[in-house]
Amino acid sequence: MDQDVVIVGDWGTSRLRLWLRQGKSVIHRRDGPGVSTLTETPQQTFLNLVGDWREASPAGAILCGMVGSSLGWSLAPYAPCPADAAAVAQRTIRLEADGLPVTLVPGLSCVNPLGGPDVMRGEETQVFGALALNPALQRGRHLLALPGTHNKWTVVEDGKVTGFVTAPVGETFALLKQRSTLAAGGGAQAEGSAEGFALGLERIGAHGAQRLLHLMFETRGRQLLDGTSPADAMGYLSGLLIGADVAAARDWFGPIEAVTVIGAGPLGDLYVKALARVGVGAAVVDGDAAVLAGLSSISRTSAISRFQDK
Amino acid sequence: MDQDVVIVGDWGTSRLRLWLRQGKSVIHRRDGPGVSTLTETPQQTFLNLVGDWREASPAGAILCGMVGSSLGWSLAPYAPCPADAAAVAQRTIRLEADGLPVTLVPGLSCVNPLGGPDVMRGEETQVFGALALNPALQRGRHLLALPGTHNKWTVVEDGKVTGFVTAPVGETFALLKQRSTLAAGGGAQAEGSAEGFALGLERIGAHGAQRLLHLMFETRGRQLLDGTSPADAMGYLSGLLIGADVAAARDWFGPIEAVTVIGAGPLGDLYVKALARVGVGAAVVDGDAAVLAGLSSISRTSAISRFQDK
Repeated sequence: MDQDVVIVGDWGTSRLRLWLRQGKSVIHRRDGPGVSTLTETPQQTFLNLVGDWREASPAGAILCGMVGSSLGWSLAPYAPCPADAAAVAQRTIRLEADGLPVTLVPGLSCVNPLGGPDVMRGEETQVFGALALNPALQRGRHLLALPGTHNKWTVVEDGKVTGFVTAPVGETFALLKQRSTLAAGGGAQAEGSAEGFALGLERIGAHGAQRLLHLMFETRGRQLLDGTSPADAMGYLSGLLIGADVAAARDWFGPIEAVTVIGAGPLGDLYVKALARVGVGAAVVDGDAAVLAGLSSISRTSAISRFQDK
Repeated sequence: MDQDVVIVGDWGTSRLRLWLRQGKSVIHRRDGPGVSTLTETPQQTFLNLVGDWREASPAGAILCGMVGSSLGWSLAPYAPCPADAAAVAQRTIRLEADGLPVTLVPGLSCVNPLGGPDVMRGEETQVFGALALNPALQRGRHLLALPGTHNKWTVVEDGKVTGFVTAPVGETFALLKQRSTLAAGGGAQAEGSAEGFALGLERIGAHGAQRLLHLMFETRGRQLLDGTSPADAMGYLSGLLIGADVAAARDWFGPIEAVTVIGAGPLGDLYVKALARVGVGAAVVDGDAAVLAGLSSISRTSAISRFQDK
């Protein structure tokens, strides 16, 4: 067994990303199914994907995400906020798969800024990774956004996650785009345009996020009366939802100079645009880089871990 | 042909309701498929449902709703606001089905209170019906709500519809309830509880409609962390959406003493509760009664109509 070689992974609802690491280097990456779409047990799915990586004699595996939920491999109960990487590491749980030690990272729970209950699983690892990649985030108060199916606005203070709040923006947009009358006439097949997105941001800016539901229906009205294309209509709908999410987050966090957006790619870009529209800067961190750095942080601070990041 | 006997109907996206009237009395009612689910042509579907009503020698038929859209029988272009029943009557279109004259009622278009384009088809008939049933609404400025797949807040001034704005509340709720992670754990099968609904209204009241997206995710957080039941969770989600719709409508209309809610039944009741929560009274008008009265008003004021309501 090579203590320097480990398997690390992010096993979410819709996909599994697995990396074989040696020291700080990634040697291989493999993708598999999310926990909601398994045809075998989590253990068997995992071992099948690991396959010949066993020949590299890995010391073990560490996995974050929905794999630690009641729908996953085994339950890793939420760590309550405030929590830093060490607090999360203390609450990891240990399994064994055909002789290979497997560590599951728990998610976080909190009372959100609106006084309601909130949860995350997987995003905590990316947040701790962003802190490791950018030490300036380890001091003071910072706001991070993790756009996706569910966007998690996360507040970090002196290295601890003190709270977060979730907006199901990606999921709501996908349902409306694929299945609603707002997308009748080709929206389901269209890719949202930049022009439409800008109009959505502008309309939310002019009327406020409290008008979201009513501005949403213009997606249809514009197509019927103004000949707006499906691409512009879907861009507009996306601009409304992201604009409303950003407007509300800015209100409760207070003055923000810059937000750290975790997740490069088209969705991250849309959040950067929406933040710029309200005068807030953004620094983008790649999602995979954040996962890898976060799993290293959690391993390093874990009293029970045998994986050392050198 | 008996000039006193007519067929009237509301043919929407998801259902067709057809009545045989003699004077002011309804003799029979039949239900058929909506224009989005036809297996035959609209004409054939209509004639099949009419069937032996032809023996009553009706003078003709008048139909409102999506039957007049590009997805229906034949296009009846929108009448622009402001519009009263006479203006709509002037824009009806005439067809013939196996010798039976058929009149299609157009919908309305407007620039809504947010400056965006908006449309309705079918609801205009219910609005004119509510005015006929309650003459007090024919003078002054009034706000009407027509909850459904798409709620239409409609402003009537001195008998004319001067504007309206649509909130796709019913459709958004149905998609989230049937297909989203917010309903994971049994929400799709649950009926929303009154307690959950009240909590949703309370949370929107406390934090404002601009927090809708973030309060929505609590639907999931409450189930995971607080053991909230699927019925309470779905009631909560419904309370948030309806509460946000009502809060925004109240803001733009200005001081309201009472709203006329068209549509008796569970959804109408939820709007009455949400209005009461913000101190606004409501008068409820039955939807079928409104359709029947509205079609009479449009027939009566139509220069081209041969149907006289006595």
